[in-house]
Amino acid sequence: MKVTVVAGNPKPESRTLAAGALLAEVIAGRPADSVVDVITLGAPLLGWGDATVKAAVASVAESDLVVFASPTFKATYTGVLKLFLDQFAGATGLAGVVAIPLMLGAGPAHALAPELLLKPVLVELGAICPTQGLYLTDSSYDQPGALDAWLTQWRPTLDRLLGTAA
Amino acid sequence: MKVTVVAGNPKPESRTLAAGALLAEVIAGRPADSVVDVITLGAPLLGWGDATVKAAVASVAESDLVVFASPTFKATYTGVLKLFLDQFAGATGLAGVVAIPLMLGAGPAHALAPELLLKPVLVELGAICPTQGLYLTDSSYDQPGALDAWLTQWRPTLDRLLGTAA
Amino acid sequence: MKVTVVAGNPKPESRTLAAGALLAEVIAGRPADSVVDVITLGAPLLGWGDATVKAAVASVAESDLVVFASPTFKATYTGVLKLFLDQFAGATGLAGVVAIPLMLGAGPAHALAPELLLKPVLVELGAICPTQGLYLTDSSYDQPGALDAWLTQWRPTLDRLLGTAA
Amino acid sequence: MKVTVVAGNPKPESRTLAAGALLAEVIAGRPADSVVDVITLGAPLLGWGDATVKAAVASVAESDLVVFASPTFKATYTGVLKLFLDQFAGATGLAGVVAIPLMLGAGPAHALAPELLLKPVLVELGAICPTQGLYLTDSSYDQPGALDAWLTQWRPTLDRLLGTAA
Repeated sequence: MKVTVVAGNPKPESRTLAAGALLAEVIAGRPADSVVDVITLGAPLLGWGDATVKAAVASVAESDLVVFASPTFKATYTGVLKLFLDQFAGATGLAGVVAIPLMLGAGPAHALAPELLLKPVLVELGAICPTQGLYLTDSSYDQPGALDAWLTQWRPTLDRLLGTAA
Repeated sequence: MKVTVVAGNPKPESRTLAAGALLAEVIAGRPADSVVDVITLGAPLLGWGDATVKAAVASVAESDLVVFASPTFKATYTGVLKLFLDQFAGATGLAGVVAIPLMLGAGPAHALAPELLLKPVLVELGAICPTQGLYLTDSSYDQPGALDAWLTQWRPTLDRLLGTAA
Repeated sequence: MKVTVVAGNPKPESRTLAAGALLAEVIAGRPADSVVDVITLGAPLLGWGDATVKAAVASVAESDLVVFASPTFKATYTGVLKLFLDQFAGATGLAGVVAIPLMLGAGPAHALAPELLLKPVLVELGAICPTQGLYLTDSSYDQPGALDAWLTQWRPTLDRLLGTAA
Repeated sequence: MKVTVVAGNPKPESRTLAAGALLAEVIAGRPADSVVDVITLGAPLLGWGDATVKAAVASVAESDLVVFASPTFKATYTGVLKLFLDQFAGATGLAGVVAIPLMLGAGPAHALAPELLLKPVLVELGAICPTQGLYLTDSSYDQPGALDAWLTQWRPTLDRLLGTAA
């Protein structure tokens, strides 16, 4: 099983990335195999056909599980993340990939954004999004128990799809 | 495997119900075990605790696969369907149920509604919604091939979750 | 100027209604002229053509300002409110009406729902929704200052449209 | 009255831009005063503080009417447009600006996207979005009558807010 984290924060090595990596590790039982810190792809994200961008897209597309993590900007995911998602083919770009929409914010007011806004983009690319979108607070995402309620509710479904049941 | 169709059309025995039944049968390979034509539950939908409504809720909750079908009213699902969904417990009411959001409309303009609007309600109830929401046109839902593109894309995922692979 | 409050709580004389009435009064500078406590319309909401329901629809449609208030059920507005909205004609049913989407919830997690989910239904009916949708907490909606931030941001626009500027 | 068009197509001088300019001209009765073809701002969009980007943001923010135009990528607005919107301050960045969410697509399936997805971002920035979001088809946006239904419904509201009534 290939596990990947995609982080769409304009700042590299962000808390967004750390939260995505933490979630992927908790689900998979081991660290992610691959990380795409989107902003490090730089200006080629604004066009099409760059080899490094294409390699990143291919790496994500061949993954079994991908956490797509974004900070909350203007009550939704970032332009940086969407730039990267725009590089995938519609309907097939994430076909067969189990994807988790994850967003972080300063407070709870935008907690519906991963479910209502980020998930539909991933599904449009063909991703299988079997869980509810997850929203975490910047200041507490790595505290003990922060993921517990979500994991209790959705882990059995992920295990069925990924074959990760103990 | 228990297969159920829920139809939220204010008119009983509607095309909405027929479309839901058709989709359920195509997925399961046999007719649905149970049908809830919500409007037939009548005035008790406006309150809480009616025995017949509670039995319908319980029947849906114990299903393995449920197609939730609605006509498109005001660019979203109907009040009739939402009345029924309001009877379920949040987070747990549809826990473990694989649910398909299905909407029918007169034309294609509201095709995003099942994914953006109906699916999040089902997920909020705990349902597993592994496919993209499906939108069909009133006049063609039962034509040959109407379901093909959606089935080609999403059937493998349903088969993995439901154990319905041939 | 005719000012109306529509409340979609399954319980009559709810806090939802009180919050809607409070908001309408603060905007208009005087109590609302008319209140539709939807649940009191009863079983005729499930069909079409009832005279009392039609009179309520007409009263709302001829208003200048309407606050549409709903509790948050399953992360969105109630089936009861949507039943009533389904009685209006698409595109024209609320034409010329300035409408405020208002939702109340137990906590802040669903704060995006009025903007993302309730407002589009009102706009689909032709309503002018010039403000951001407003979300208030059950336990604090009537506390001093609860409406201040929203009013500071949106009151000038309402005043321009309604001619209510001092 | 300052009228501005913002186009978020990864290709400069796109049909998206032409459609936005057409809509602005029809509403204002004369060509737009200013055009921001976002992609021409280039790599500085990926960071903060670039003088040219800041000047573009300021020009948009001081406008009275802005058409925000995007092609439909992955069933929603582009990453390019969101990158630019991420440069504005939340709640105040578009305060006092009357904004029209406009999206173009190859077919009608994504017609709900401007209302459900693009408008809430503009409102989060403080924009006044008094009309329904407008969706046009690539191949027909400039045909006679393409804007008629939308204009008939929403022009009176724009005229009231902008003082553009004849």
